[in-house]
Amino acid sequence: MPIHSPMKRSIQEQAYLLAAEFQKTAIQRDREGGNPKWERDLIRESGLLNLLTPERLGGMGKTWGDVCEVVQIFAQADSSLAHVYGYHFLNLTTPYFYGTSEQSDFYYQQTIQQNLFWGNAFNPIDLNLFATKKNSSILLNGKKTFCSGSADSDYLIVSSIFEETEVPLIAVIPTNRQGIEVNGDWDHFGQRQTDSGSITFKNVPVYKEDILAAVPPNDEFLSIRSSIANFLISHIMLGVTKSAINEALQYVSTKTRARFAQHSSAIDDPYIQRHLGKFHIQYEAAESLISQTTAAFQEAWEKGWNLTEKEKTSIQNSIGVAKAFITTAGLDITSRIFDVMGSRATSNTYRYDRFWRNIRTLSLHAPINYEIQRLGTWTLQNYKNHLDLEENQ
Amino acid sequence: MPIHSPMKRSIQEQAYLLAAEFQKTAIQRDREGGNPKWERDLIRESGLLNLLTPERLGGMGKTWGDVCEVVQIFAQADSSLAHVYGYHFLNLTTPYFYGTSEQSDFYYQQTIQQNLFWGNAFNPIDLNLFATKKNSSILLNGKKTFCSGSADSDYLIVSSIFEETEVPLIAVIPTNRQGIEVNGDWDHFGQRQTDSGSITFKNVPVYKEDILAAVPPNDEFLSIRSSIANFLISHIMLGVTKSAINEALQYVSTKTRARFAQHSSAIDDPYIQRHLGKFHIQYEAAESLISQTTAAFQEAWEKGWNLTEKEKTSIQNSIGVAKAFITTAGLDITSRIFDVMGSRATSNTYRYDRFWRNIRTLSLHAPINYEIQRLGTWTLQNYKNHLDLEENQ
Amino acid sequence: MPIHSPMKRSIQEQAYLLAAEFQKTAIQRDREGGNPKWERDLIRESGLLNLLTPERLGGMGKTWGDVCEVVQIFAQADSSLAHVYGYHFLNLTTPYFYGTSEQSDFYYQQTIQQNLFWGNAFNPIDLNLFATKKNSSILLNGKKTFCSGSADSDYLIVSSIFEETEVPLIAVIPTNRQGIEVNGDWDHFGQRQTDSGSITFKNVPVYKEDILAAVPPNDEFLSIRSSIANFLISHIMLGVTKSAINEALQYVSTKTRARFAQHSSAIDDPYIQRHLGKFHIQYEAAESLISQTTAAFQEAWEKGWNLTEKEKTSIQNSIGVAKAFITTAGLDITSRIFDVMGSRATSNTYRYDRFWRNIRTLSLHAPINYEIQRLGTWTLQNYKNHLDLEENQ
Amino acid sequence: MPIHSPMKRSIQEQAYLLAAEFQKTAIQRDREGGNPKWERDLIRESGLLNLLTPERLGGMGKTWGDVCEVVQIFAQADSSLAHVYGYHFLNLTTPYFYGTSEQSDFYYQQTIQQNLFWGNAFNPIDLNLFATKKNSSILLNGKKTFCSGSADSDYLIVSSIFEETEVPLIAVIPTNRQGIEVNGDWDHFGQRQTDSGSITFKNVPVYKEDILAAVPPNDEFLSIRSSIANFLISHIMLGVTKSAINEALQYVSTKTRARFAQHSSAIDDPYIQRHLGKFHIQYEAAESLISQTTAAFQEAWEKGWNLTEKEKTSIQNSIGVAKAFITTAGLDITSRIFDVMGSRATSNTYRYDRFWRNIRTLSLHAPINYEIQRLGTWTLQNYKNHLDLEENQ
Repeated sequence: MPIHSPMKRSIQEQAYLLAAEFQKTAIQRDREGGNPKWERDLIRESGLLNLLTPERLGGMGKTWGDVCEVVQIFAQADSSLAHVYGYHFLNLTTPYFYGTSEQSDFYYQQTIQQNLFWGNAFNPIDLNLFATKKNSSILLNGKKTFCSGSADSDYLIVSSIFEETEVPLIAVIPTNRQGIEVNGDWDHFGQRQTDSGSITFKNVPVYKEDILAAVPPNDEFLSIRSSIANFLISHIMLGVTKSAINEALQYVSTKTRARFAQHSSAIDDPYIQRHLGKFHIQYEAAESLISQTTAAFQEAWEKGWNLTEKEKTSIQNSIGVAKAFITTAGLDITSRIFDVMGSRATSNTYRYDRFWRNIRTLSLHAPINYEIQRLGTWTLQNYKNHLDLEENQ
Repeated sequence: MPIHSPMKRSIQEQAYLLAAEFQKTAIQRDREGGNPKWERDLIRESGLLNLLTPERLGGMGKTWGDVCEVVQIFAQADSSLAHVYGYHFLNLTTPYFYGTSEQSDFYYQQTIQQNLFWGNAFNPIDLNLFATKKNSSILLNGKKTFCSGSADSDYLIVSSIFEETEVPLIAVIPTNRQGIEVNGDWDHFGQRQTDSGSITFKNVPVYKEDILAAVPPNDEFLSIRSSIANFLISHIMLGVTKSAINEALQYVSTKTRARFAQHSSAIDDPYIQRHLGKFHIQYEAAESLISQTTAAFQEAWEKGWNLTEKEKTSIQNSIGVAKAFITTAGLDITSRIFDVMGSRATSNTYRYDRFWRNIRTLSLHAPINYEIQRLGTWTLQNYKNHLDLEENQ
Repeated sequence: MPIHSPMKRSIQEQAYLLAAEFQKTAIQRDREGGNPKWERDLIRESGLLNLLTPERLGGMGKTWGDVCEVVQIFAQADSSLAHVYGYHFLNLTTPYFYGTSEQSDFYYQQTIQQNLFWGNAFNPIDLNLFATKKNSSILLNGKKTFCSGSADSDYLIVSSIFEETEVPLIAVIPTNRQGIEVNGDWDHFGQRQTDSGSITFKNVPVYKEDILAAVPPNDEFLSIRSSIANFLISHIMLGVTKSAINEALQYVSTKTRARFAQHSSAIDDPYIQRHLGKFHIQYEAAESLISQTTAAFQEAWEKGWNLTEKEKTSIQNSIGVAKAFITTAGLDITSRIFDVMGSRATSNTYRYDRFWRNIRTLSLHAPINYEIQRLGTWTLQNYKNHLDLEENQ
Repeated sequence: MPIHSPMKRSIQEQAYLLAAEFQKTAIQRDREGGNPKWERDLIRESGLLNLLTPERLGGMGKTWGDVCEVVQIFAQADSSLAHVYGYHFLNLTTPYFYGTSEQSDFYYQQTIQQNLFWGNAFNPIDLNLFATKKNSSILLNGKKTFCSGSADSDYLIVSSIFEETEVPLIAVIPTNRQGIEVNGDWDHFGQRQTDSGSITFKNVPVYKEDILAAVPPNDEFLSIRSSIANFLISHIMLGVTKSAINEALQYVSTKTRARFAQHSSAIDDPYIQRHLGKFHIQYEAAESLISQTTAAFQEAWEKGWNLTEKEKTSIQNSIGVAKAFITTAGLDITSRIFDVMGSRATSNTYRYDRFWRNIRTLSLHAPINYEIQRLGTWTLQNYKNHLDLEENQ
């Protein structure tokens, strides 16, 4: 499928050129799974890994909006590459949240100089990686799962806990450090090339300079870090949904046969038109919400440690609403595109089921049930605050 | 129910003050139906009927965004008054679309000087009002239905056809002209005080200066007039939906009893929280779409006769998407608020069913089935245009 | 609207004749609310109040299936009368559950001899009616709400608690006993003529013979009494839904205008056809579930005190599934009929909104949220039991 | 997953034993696709291919209800084998519809004697197989697609048209006849081992005795043949849905982790309980409709050529309703089971996505859009007939 959007500027242009490459083998790579080394190197070469790095450090100084635009462009061609590309920024910015400003600057610069691709070993729910102090050094032993983008990564963000005290330890560690084994065991039905498998750590040393342990000036900003994954995943799901709709439009326009004699072509079928109209409405609503979220998130990013609790809640609500909406809409659309395309579209020539498989897998990162509940609770509390405010006036 | 939004500026302030008045008797007036004369006069006195009139003509020179904000504020208290207020602008701006610029200016000024409230007798599908030429004069005979805001109006926008030629005739006629009888026969289950009943015309003379017959410089802009009703109705439905959610929040916070012993209060019930979370997500998506539409519509309004076909289609799509979305979301939420409030909330003390009745009635103005179909057809055509474009490059 | 089903036998025939009478004034009585005295007397005269009474006691000896058929026939004409008719049996059979067999027989016979209509003052959640012992007599003081069918009733089933001990007391009391005031204060938006308002009790004496206090031989059968209301309400909702669909079919066939020139009539519109097809599918599924439930319930009724726990659970699950399904389907269909009929169908000439209002009100008797949860929990437990069973084999 | 239903009788017992074998390799065979030769031979050996063959011809003389029960049992383990098993009967009974009674008896007997498995090359929409008369013989040339169960089949039902006259020709042909090439090219994302690929015919002779060309005594019964595929597919989808729910119950009971500290286990989570409750309600409704359909179909089968038009329509409506319902419910449930199981359930260890993939593929055999439309049209016509009937009384 061609990527249709016009090329406005050079970042988009690069993104579309890369996406066009990813597109060529997307079906094959969805079948095979594994590590998209060649494609990851194309990203490295493009310079797009430095999009968000401040200009003063030699980066491109762009916004999260630019990152998300590239994520969406990639996701229309290959949602696994969109995933590891988006998560690169989640990891690359982690020193900014947890480390000193020197550490943050250092890693931004290293990344530029060596075209580094960052991977994830952070999963805070998965408590099977333990740190122990041995003499003056710290060693990591254990296992992390769901380590997206870890294979072929250069740096890892690693979270662990000290075995005896259960105190958490966050560190940046080069992926090739001795004792780290990226197991390459990700074989799930969606997001096939995200390398979200496990990493085994055997006596991996952690040096003082690796440790991210700055005292955060403000918990509000810190806590939005945990929303970044949901934020990025919404963008990926939006891209997948757009791609699914575009494939359906192309297929219907060129392959689907008219059902009844009175229609010269499938595109005259009122039910096909209705399904497509409904897809469009759902897509536009998702796009509108996600777009608002992006602007709000960038604003929060710029406020940084000055973010207030109210602003933080507003951002989290916005991300929560967008994530819940695109999850439901994306699952629905990627399942229903077959209602317009017809039975021959289930052929593995196309692997069109990958849209649903990818969204279904992405959607489970953080189940929306609890996000919906949290939003409902917030509306109640917010309403009560208003009442109290009025009474006290 | 109190109106919670803060008062930022004087227009909003006025709107909230009026809404607070409407609120006081909204339940009673929903029961009784009929003409809200007292409330309409409050609107007249407020000056808000001149919100959109250009400053050079003595008006407030505000935008459609401001109009829509007032419409939403009114709709949270009383959707009938929001309706006739919004339609006032649909009618007041009709000379701008169909008449000469002198006529447009004249009516804007008249409206300011005399605090005029405009009513509707335009319905272009209802072809039972006929014009005949008698000597040098034109007479109207017949009937119009769905004449929203006609009772207690000062001017009417009237559409008719010449009996013999079927050529359309659009005119501005003072409601009190002889031969016009506003029948006051609107008795539908929703939008109870919109006076959307019938008008009988008996030998009503139409003078040369009443006729709106300028040659439009450009059909694109002209055709967006027919989208204004849908645009306004989306805003009314959004206001009704917000009001329904707020009432549910208030009721749950203060009246609903906890179902199970483990919850100290209904607001701890996970299912009540879930319903409220879902309401919030739907509302936010609707709000986001409608808000985009408003900005886009104002831009189109400012372009006026320079509007291109592509821009027109974009506006119409935006309005169509928003209308279809809020229709579905509004019907769903106003029906489901009872799932959180419980059985005692069906008491006519509250008349909470009016939210559903009002949205159900509003939603039928132009059925969304055909809008959805049109949007689906557009996505297909748009996709085909892209393909053709690429092939020709 | 005519009642279309053919008249198979005499009970049905009577039911249809009564329904035809109810139909004549259903719209007017929905507007006015209050007590349908004339219609209730027609039911009294018909003998249909003795449908379930055993033949050995002079009754008609029919089944719950017959009762439910009459309930559905009534509900298609007037869901309030279906409600009070159905609840008559809930109340009339209460002595069978809680009293001695002599009491049960006595009340069945009294009901036949005097054409008695039973009303409800049982609501076990509403704990504001208190019994006190004064010398050798018992007096009731307080209030009951949601007393469906109480106005114009002959006997009431009354539940209360002893003020000091909180021990429950269930009794049969003639409605006209001194100290009982049926307040006639039911004014809710649906089920307008069910007289589900409050009753005030002032020093109402309860005599020994009024008290239902037999020791139940088996708790399983006793506990299905509390499912009867849900069971009856499902049948009423099914009748209302059928009526709504039939009205829509009639309206579309005779009044709705074709939207587009290519359709000679609205019935050729593919979207109208689609909506109606979806209504039919939902209706058939509800009908199928409710029909299964009826057969299962009658079987349980015949087993009586021999009912096992497993059978009881099965009945309750069946009723729960049917109730949850028809609630959702009924609300959806009665809201969406307007999508096929169009805007003129919102006129109060028809009061077609009453279908949604009636189902919405009925649906809140016992919220389906907790029934759905209970069913989910049951599937988990049931699955676990299977696993355990297999392991132990 | 174990098959839980108890073994009532010997046919069921055999079916469960076979299903247990299929289950062992279902995941692996879903991955590999291709022809399940070993499993097909197990079916051959079981004798279950003769379930429907009349006793007078040496068959088991069972009903379509028995066939469907086996289909459901198989579908819970492997929906591809359920598919080819069910279609065997569609094909085996085709001589009864189109041939003489001698032909019908002959093929029933052949099938018993040689344990024959029938395949499909009937697809009447696919018009690329042509018959030509050459001297006294007829030759087939061309291609058929969607030939379910053709690989490893013994007999094929083949439909073609005479090249010059376009007159249809239906014949029974041994799969191993010269010139027939079963291409084994089925590679779709669902129903992976149904061998629903293409067959190429090169100068395949058709002999006089192969041709099914009896004059049908009655078109009504003939036309229900085309509903058998939909009927069988509903049963397969029901089995897949049941299996998906059972897997979810097992996974949640044993693997899913509790989200919050207050729940000792995932099975205490109110949202997991809610999802499972909703699955149960949908499943029960589907089961109830499909069960009704089965009884009605068997009745029609027994009436045979005496079937009236009204009875035929009733059967087709019943099948249409059931198919539309289970399609929607099945797609929904098989997508939403992951909401209860969580992210680790997307691992290819389980291939739980196959439930959705199988239903999505099955559902496209005949799109439900047109079935829903047909049902809506029927309700309108049926209503009109009632009106006419009443008027004429």
